[in-house]
Amino acid sequence: MLLRALILASLLLSPLSAGAKAQEDVLRYVDPTIGSVGKGNVVIGPSTPFGMAKPSPDCSNHHASGWLPMPAPVEGFAQVHLSGTGGGPKYGNLLLQPFSDSMEKIRHPQHRRSECIEPGWYNSIYEESGISTDLTVSRRTSFYDFKYPASGLHGLAVDCGFFLTLNNPNAPSCEKQEFVGSEIEILSDHEVTGYTRIRGGWNDGRAYTVYFYLASDQPFIRTRTWKGEALSEARWQGDSGEATGALLQFASEAREVRVKVGISCLGCLKARENALSEIPHWSLEKTRAELEDSWRDILGKVELAPETPDSLKRMFYTGLYHAFLLPVDKTGENPLWNDGEPYYDDFYALWDTFRTTVPMMMLLLPDRGAGFVRSLLSIYRHDKYLPDARSGHSNGRTQGGSNADIVIADAWLKGLPGIDWDLALEAVLQDADVPPGGNQEAEGRGGLVEYNTLGFLPYGIPRAGNRIVEYSRCDHAIYQLAKGLGREDLAERFLRQSSRWKNQWRADCVHDGARGFIMPRNRDGSWPDRVAGLFPDHQVFDFNPLTYEGWKYSSNWDCFFYEGNSWIYSLCIPHDVPGLIEACGGPEAFRQRLDTFFQRPYFEVQNEPSFFSPCLYHWLGRPDLTAQVIRNTIEEHFNDRADGLPGNDDSGATSCWLDFHLMGLYPVAGQDLYILHAPLVPGLVLHLDGGDFHIRTQGFSDRNRYVRAVRLNGKDYPYTGLRHKDLVQGGELVFIMGSKPGAWGTTLMPTSE
Amino acid sequence: MLLRALILASLLLSPLSAGAKAQEDVLRYVDPTIGSVGKGNVVIGPSTPFGMAKPSPDCSNHHASGWLPMPAPVEGFAQVHLSGTGGGPKYGNLLLQPFSDSMEKIRHPQHRRSECIEPGWYNSIYEESGISTDLTVSRRTSFYDFKYPASGLHGLAVDCGFFLTLNNPNAPSCEKQEFVGSEIEILSDHEVTGYTRIRGGWNDGRAYTVYFYLASDQPFIRTRTWKGEALSEARWQGDSGEATGALLQFASEAREVRVKVGISCLGCLKARENALSEIPHWSLEKTRAELEDSWRDILGKVELAPETPDSLKRMFYTGLYHAFLLPVDKTGENPLWNDGEPYYDDFYALWDTFRTTVPMMMLLLPDRGAGFVRSLLSIYRHDKYLPDARSGHSNGRTQGGSNADIVIADAWLKGLPGIDWDLALEAVLQDADVPPGGNQEAEGRGGLVEYNTLGFLPYGIPRAGNRIVEYSRCDHAIYQLAKGLGREDLAERFLRQSSRWKNQWRADCVHDGARGFIMPRNRDGSWPDRVAGLFPDHQVFDFNPLTYEGWKYSSNWDCFFYEGNSWIYSLCIPHDVPGLIEACGGPEAFRQRLDTFFQRPYFEVQNEPSFFSPCLYHWLGRPDLTAQVIRNTIEEHFNDRADGLPGNDDSGATSCWLDFHLMGLYPVAGQDLYILHAPLVPGLVLHLDGGDFHIRTQGFSDRNRYVRAVRLNGKDYPYTGLRHKDLVQGGELVFIMGSKPGAWGTTLMPTSE
Repeated sequence: MLLRALILASLLLSPLSAGAKAQEDVLRYVDPTIGSVGKGNVVIGPSTPFGMAKPSPDCSNHHASGWLPMPAPVEGFAQVHLSGTGGGPKYGNLLLQPFSDSMEKIRHPQHRRSECIEPGWYNSIYEESGISTDLTVSRRTSFYDFKYPASGLHGLAVDCGFFLTLNNPNAPSCEKQEFVGSEIEILSDHEVTGYTRIRGGWNDGRAYTVYFYLASDQPFIRTRTWKGEALSEARWQGDSGEATGALLQFASEAREVRVKVGISCLGCLKARENALSEIPHWSLEKTRAELEDSWRDILGKVELAPETPDSLKRMFYTGLYHAFLLPVDKTGENPLWNDGEPYYDDFYALWDTFRTTVPMMMLLLPDRGAGFVRSLLSIYRHDKYLPDARSGHSNGRTQGGSNADIVIADAWLKGLPGIDWDLALEAVLQDADVPPGGNQEAEGRGGLVEYNTLGFLPYGIPRAGNRIVEYSRCDHAIYQLAKGLGREDLAERFLRQSSRWKNQWRADCVHDGARGFIMPRNRDGSWPDRVAGLFPDHQVFDFNPLTYEGWKYSSNWDCFFYEGNSWIYSLCIPHDVPGLIEACGGPEAFRQRLDTFFQRPYFEVQNEPSFFSPCLYHWLGRPDLTAQVIRNTIEEHFNDRADGLPGNDDSGATSCWLDFHLMGLYPVAGQDLYILHAPLVPGLVLHLDGGDFHIRTQGFSDRNRYVRAVRLNGKDYPYTGLRHKDLVQGGELVFIMGSKPGAWGTTLMPTSE
Repeated sequence: MLLRALILASLLLSPLSAGAKAQEDVLRYVDPTIGSVGKGNVVIGPSTPFGMAKPSPDCSNHHASGWLPMPAPVEGFAQVHLSGTGGGPKYGNLLLQPFSDSMEKIRHPQHRRSECIEPGWYNSIYEESGISTDLTVSRRTSFYDFKYPASGLHGLAVDCGFFLTLNNPNAPSCEKQEFVGSEIEILSDHEVTGYTRIRGGWNDGRAYTVYFYLASDQPFIRTRTWKGEALSEARWQGDSGEATGALLQFASEAREVRVKVGISCLGCLKARENALSEIPHWSLEKTRAELEDSWRDILGKVELAPETPDSLKRMFYTGLYHAFLLPVDKTGENPLWNDGEPYYDDFYALWDTFRTTVPMMMLLLPDRGAGFVRSLLSIYRHDKYLPDARSGHSNGRTQGGSNADIVIADAWLKGLPGIDWDLALEAVLQDADVPPGGNQEAEGRGGLVEYNTLGFLPYGIPRAGNRIVEYSRCDHAIYQLAKGLGREDLAERFLRQSSRWKNQWRADCVHDGARGFIMPRNRDGSWPDRVAGLFPDHQVFDFNPLTYEGWKYSSNWDCFFYEGNSWIYSLCIPHDVPGLIEACGGPEAFRQRLDTFFQRPYFEVQNEPSFFSPCLYHWLGRPDLTAQVIRNTIEEHFNDRADGLPGNDDSGATSCWLDFHLMGLYPVAGQDLYILHAPLVPGLVLHLDGGDFHIRTQGFSDRNRYVRAVRLNGKDYPYTGLRHKDLVQGGELVFIMGSKPGAWGTTLMPTSE
């Protein structure tokens, strides 16, 4: 509906003439509020690409981004956030709050009279005090401009005890953050330093510390500090496991106060160095301009055709913006080791991002993609396992597979530079061969002993249903890497293992017209119809392909399928679609099954296990059906407003699903394969390191939504899949559109994957 | 020889009259140099009991305590050390070095002209500069007094980049410490602060940070700082992963400069708070007096009869002093969580200390013993496994069993207060049931899957030989706890499991007249005579009961027995001596086997697996033979000089073996049992919380070295074992000595353990 209108608005055939004119300012189309309400959970405050400082308002302890729309009260501005997360909270550290009421109070929550959110900039004006806060940021330094009204005192609270959901009595006790300690010191009449230390949170991580250094351009005329709830005149508060903070008062003539807050994972002096080196001036505009340029450099890698409707541009470029907010580049900020390698943190989680966000990074920013993989290997080397999720410098939690295996295979297939491939192979073999034991929540593959002896995961092992399909896929990734490295012995083994999902495939299970599903299996090989849940009472219940026991018969983590059911996970076999089609009873039965899946719908675009399923039509030679599902899904579930994302953005995973499909490309992570289908924009240029790659359309219109033929670099291209090398060296892909499907579409690739 | 002479010198019958006169100053008899050369590796610098700051001179990077005797050059005084350790290095952080030569150099190694080492005090005078350094300490603050000669400048280097073996090109690459980062700042004309961050070391631990605050009583007239090798005039150096430090210069009139260095695991301000609260003055004498009192409180718990020869008093009280240097009480200094529980670190390792050091703590300082156990449980709760070793806030490494199980059972059997026993049971069951997987080097029980399915540990699993006997013993400890808690189901299971050592007992293996040994076993149950080592070349070799493959066929960690052979480990079954005697062919064969063991000798008093073996004679009704082995061993291997310990002191393990045996008592950890035998001192009083317990002798002399009878609280006591409750409530135990063994000795306890 929306999409149709948009496409109708851009009827022109539009081969982009690259370089012919200056690219328009892509930042115009980035709206950080898209995906901020509903389940998107994106952070709305400013951030550099992969930036460590993510200052943003914190409202009554929203558990994810901290932000809530007006009229929720604002506790202040914490310096560290994540974006698009679900589950338990993480971060929300070092809260700043300007106030005008009293130096006798620690907390000063206020309401917004107005709020303005732009990429790289935030402003709000408080109702109670009239204080205006402008905010921008560099990589590790938040930069504030507080404007105080004439009346009232000019105060600023610095709270080292705050973290997300601190004051939220409804926060669940599992995955909760726990305060460990803090310090604060007034260094001079314009400097404050200290730290906060927190543990737990979504990934049940070890304690992490955020050190800070605050400098203001106006002198403090009075300062107080606190510990626990007690205010005092002490200039410093050492760590006794209690919350500390400071109240800073500026002169009444100081109507405008600029404050920079450098942060570091290493120490207070490093935080000072970060602040002073990144922002050696007092101009927010200058910092904003640098920040904007860093985003333009990245977002400008994709140049949508000018005639693309603004709404689609807004969806697309905001999606790219979301993609590169995380993971956080903490190179030079690793408190755990010092090996000269890049260091990324806050993968939340690879389970979410390996499918779309990471392929987007590898496509548009291959050097960064390589750095990311090197950082995974550095983590393996020092922490003994690759992470699936990692935050606050701790591995955990692992929802299903050891998906770093897939990221690494992807990097190999895409030829990313500078990676130690022998170490990479060692790292993925650790996942495949060494059970993580009691640490399986944090890393490796839980149930590995059973997987490697029985060949399946018996019921009772948490998340056996999704783990079997994910481990099989991870093993396929290891096969790709081993084959590439000439390790035929390993390649043979892991290709064999990549079929283990079939051991958990119950061929006689029929549901809603479909036959064959991933189902609970007993250790002795038998197939139970009724199973006992994993809550202590072990309630027995029927298990069918729509069953999801989470919250009813077991916790979200102890159920058979993580965040899904068998309808979804049984189609989640991207590494062996021909085998899947055969297991489902052949192409006709498979076609019916897919139709049922999308019509009911059982499909859930808002969560990653469903991400790939529309592309399954490609293996039936029906890219038109893929495109139709994509188009319908985007029309129904995405828009360019605050509720424009259907589920947690998950570090850009959902946004990148959208962006790839808008381009008519979809990466199959862990394979050298992009799925091609009818693009939803009239054209674009990918400005890649290897050269510009043009995607053009002919006859593009809402009516002409079908691909009749494709030309690659001027030659007819009969395939519906594309190799990475054919993309990254630059070139031209032309979709010839029509009102009906054409001959194109029957063959995926010359040799099937 | 020595011992005989000493005992000859104290022929008096000596019932102590407690309270009749003031106890003499036990500190007179503490000599921190005992065990400092050879393999003892004790730290010679001052420390409070369980103290965090252990400043001590660091000489050319000795890997353990840092100290070497003259004429080794001294690099300076680092603030953190361990005591008695073997294996790789740990700590050696924040080096101070006074100098007089030049402010243009970072390093100023010097030689000692003289050195004086006393409990709680250290002094040396440097040859090159003539600078005298006095040194004492409080819990977390080192306190220095530097006296500079008139000539030369008055300088002090503060090095945040130093750690043990930093400059040692011969340090092994495994277990090595790695520098992570550091910061330093000149705060004022008499204050410096900063930190050092190091990872790795013996336990392959995660990064730990030592923060410091230094204050001097004389102003700096000049300061410089460095980063890497570059000196500069900057007042601060942020963390860029390089070593930092400062050179401080005092005025030429400042001939005496006092410096305190507070340290903290939390932050720089906490370090400042520690320094200022612990030492709010500039008197080293006052701090020393407090330190000495804290040692007198603890060491005075045992009052040796005044007529005990001074040499034995020196050995005994220095042994007690060694016992309470570690673990380090870091309560209030835990950077990882904040749960109000006691927090101990630096168990290096329980494998060493559970046998003697921990029982000494539980006997003399039961509240501290309880706190120690609570800290183990707090570690379990937050780090998911009990530690066996732990240092720098990281579990690891685990040499054999999960010996915290035994510590916990010991605490239960000894009725220690304030422990959450349900949590304790949960924690030991985690060890017994949840394989640590890839983390087995750090915690839990490696090979647990095989142990729990096959009932033994097949050859190829690292350290299978010692693990089988240790796991069996740990399971016996769990049995004790489960039985005590009324969990009959678990008690029955773990009693059964505690016999699993028999599954690895090769009954037909005959060696040097003994039959039956713990030997390599194949997964299929067969017994190989030749095995393949675990180095990559898998060299095949004969395996006999004296084989130790370490370094030849495998690494120290991958061999069949950790630091031992089958002669030693096959006797290491304290929880089932009757079963062991039977397995060895009955009492007569067992007697012959023991005689062989001690006469060859295969016995190695310098390492813990042999600690218990002399007491095995008790189960044959021959405590006289136990006593004879003990006496011979002490005469041959212990003395009151610098080389007075036969092996690594291992956090007082070796010292406490000596001390218990000098008293005629030896604890069997994990059982409610003390072995009684002829004491080697004429009498003593244990000043216990429950009352004074007197151990007296009648007819004690070198000739009368045999116990003819024992009286407990005035009644004849026919048993050679004592229950904890009969000791801790106070009382009197009298050994009636004679020149030949008497009737006493045939029965261990009324009901056998």
